[in-house]
Amino acid sequence: MTDPRYTPLAQSLPATVPFVGPETQERQRGRPFSARLGANENVFGPSPRAIAAMQAATADIWMYGDPENHDLRAALALAHGTTPQNIVVGEGIDGLLGYLVRLLVGPGDTVVTSKGAYPTFNYHVSGFGGTLHEVPYVDDREDPASLFAKAAAVNAKLVYIANPDNPMGTWHKGAEIVAAMDALPDGCLLVLDEAYVECAPQGTAAPVDADDPRVIRMRTFSKVYGMAGARVGYGIAAPGLISAFNKVRNHFGMNRAAQAGALAALRDDDWLAHVRKEIAAARDRIARIARDNGLTPLPSATNFVAIDCGQDARFARAVLNQLIDRGLFVRMPFAAPQDRCIRISCGTASDLDALAKALPSALATARG
Amino acid sequence: MTDPRYTPLAQSLPATVPFVGPETQERQRGRPFSARLGANENVFGPSPRAIAAMQAATADIWMYGDPENHDLRAALALAHGTTPQNIVVGEGIDGLLGYLVRLLVGPGDTVVTSKGAYPTFNYHVSGFGGTLHEVPYVDDREDPASLFAKAAAVNAKLVYIANPDNPMGTWHKGAEIVAAMDALPDGCLLVLDEAYVECAPQGTAAPVDADDPRVIRMRTFSKVYGMAGARVGYGIAAPGLISAFNKVRNHFGMNRAAQAGALAALRDDDWLAHVRKEIAAARDRIARIARDNGLTPLPSATNFVAIDCGQDARFARAVLNQLIDRGLFVRMPFAAPQDRCIRISCGTASDLDALAKALPSALATARG
Repeated sequence: MTDPRYTPLAQSLPATVPFVGPETQERQRGRPFSARLGANENVFGPSPRAIAAMQAATADIWMYGDPENHDLRAALALAHGTTPQNIVVGEGIDGLLGYLVRLLVGPGDTVVTSKGAYPTFNYHVSGFGGTLHEVPYVDDREDPASLFAKAAAVNAKLVYIANPDNPMGTWHKGAEIVAAMDALPDGCLLVLDEAYVECAPQGTAAPVDADDPRVIRMRTFSKVYGMAGARVGYGIAAPGLISAFNKVRNHFGMNRAAQAGALAALRDDDWLAHVRKEIAAARDRIARIARDNGLTPLPSATNFVAIDCGQDARFARAVLNQLIDRGLFVRMPFAAPQDRCIRISCGTASDLDALAKALPSALATARG
Repeated sequence: MTDPRYTPLAQSLPATVPFVGPETQERQRGRPFSARLGANENVFGPSPRAIAAMQAATADIWMYGDPENHDLRAALALAHGTTPQNIVVGEGIDGLLGYLVRLLVGPGDTVVTSKGAYPTFNYHVSGFGGTLHEVPYVDDREDPASLFAKAAAVNAKLVYIANPDNPMGTWHKGAEIVAAMDALPDGCLLVLDEAYVECAPQGTAAPVDADDPRVIRMRTFSKVYGMAGARVGYGIAAPGLISAFNKVRNHFGMNRAAQAGALAALRDDDWLAHVRKEIAAARDRIARIARDNGLTPLPSATNFVAIDCGQDARFARAVLNQLIDRGLFVRMPFAAPQDRCIRISCGTASDLDALAKALPSALATARG
């Protein structure tokens, strides 16, 4: 009686998780967090219309969701001025990144990303046997020119850019990304993760032709739309690539209520404007709290703020742990030199009161 | 400017879907179905407590779900008399089958299933480059002895059995499956799909030791629990295999409301008993309608009935199309000789009134 015969690749992988969830930490701590500011969730929540749509759809949850995501793709196509054939809907950007990597990357294939960028993308690349090449941030921003040069040098099949960036919150103008794409090597696909773009300044979304075969843009309902727990992401790309997802995706994988919620959320521009305002105000307050404590907030186009703690990773880690001890769920960048920072998601006024209260003593203890 | 460089495997795959959804057919027809009897959904729906839990959780949908599925796994472990380390929760059995195949099957690896069994399993095997070997049904039942003998002959890494079976509705006693496993070749994992087992006769669930490394059992909230649109499935297996899923799964892939709904559904035994009764009554009525029309219903341990139309696939297909024309969404087996049947899911009294009304003229037209 022996164990299952895993593939050599599966055998080589660690059983890991890109992020430890706050619930896991709460179970380890033995008590809940008082403020949830670590996962870039949107505490301002989804449109009331989206909530109502999801609750109404619960009565129909005995039915599988539409595997074509027809209505949502039609609405997204309209919103983006393109066709449903340019849109793939999936179980969050995480799910779509997994499918995308699977379509392109096998053992020995090369992929380029920034050192310290989104670990779940790296998880998928490793998971399909790809080799990651990492390019450093420049001034805490991803560096498209260097990323594309590295992609050319290593013959990468895929290069990843998040704009705005996570975990730093920095950004490029969309037109700059498009201009930089002139140097994207032939046969290398750019995956442009725009998860946070709805709360970024005008002009951050890359003005890409949806039929451009060089790029797929990833969007989500998890951030500004406030539906992280629903799992709805989408990709915008040329029809050939969109159609390729049908070779590998979990066709009946979408939650039916989530489909309905996303559709309703997309139609509530007023709520989106409200959330944008709340996010902007919370960003300002986080920055103010940082400065009040002698720290340096980075400019942010996202729903979080990276705070430079002014010393090394060890110190930032100490500050982080002190905040966690004080009941605040927060995270920090994984790689140097960005790991001199901690990362605070936008919270309610009461969440940020708790941050303002905890930070001085957290810093004092970390220094002491 | 060239297309993305897909892997050779991805390039070789068709863009396909294991099942065409009813919504797609409705869009093609230009009008909705009046009875949804094709996807083995459970029209009797989830526990009212599960609906309430999902609706309540919608208010928290701005948060990601717990990636460890801690509470649900704990409750499932309790229900099955095992430990959470024996349980993996995923985006339906479909999602879990994908992860499982990915862990075990690469190009050239062999897998055994029954000819005409669950196509989504086959989709995953092909999708990871595996080679399928198919064993015929015997008397419209899957044949464990032949499946395991074939697995030995072709050195299979994985063998699939659904008990009760879909699309035929037939079943084996669980103890017979376990006894047959004596002939399961060393190093071949049995994936025992028990999606329908909660409405099968006592003794159908295989009395497997959860730590037995030879088998993983798949269960779901999509069928008797009435939550197909929520996407919650789970696997029960030895801790080593369960832990391997953490190498490849979409850790944050579960819908938060679905997690809450499944937990509440699991705790409502009364509702489960109610649904079992409704399913049994609907099965009897479908069988009666079949016999009233001179057709032969197969015995069923599921929430559907396969009806032998008494002629060949062409005739069964004609009957099916006539029912579809009359507004009934129904399906039929894919492979001979099971494709002499049509497959009718349990419906409400009104759904089955529609079937009783439509079948005589559908048959007449198919014969004519």
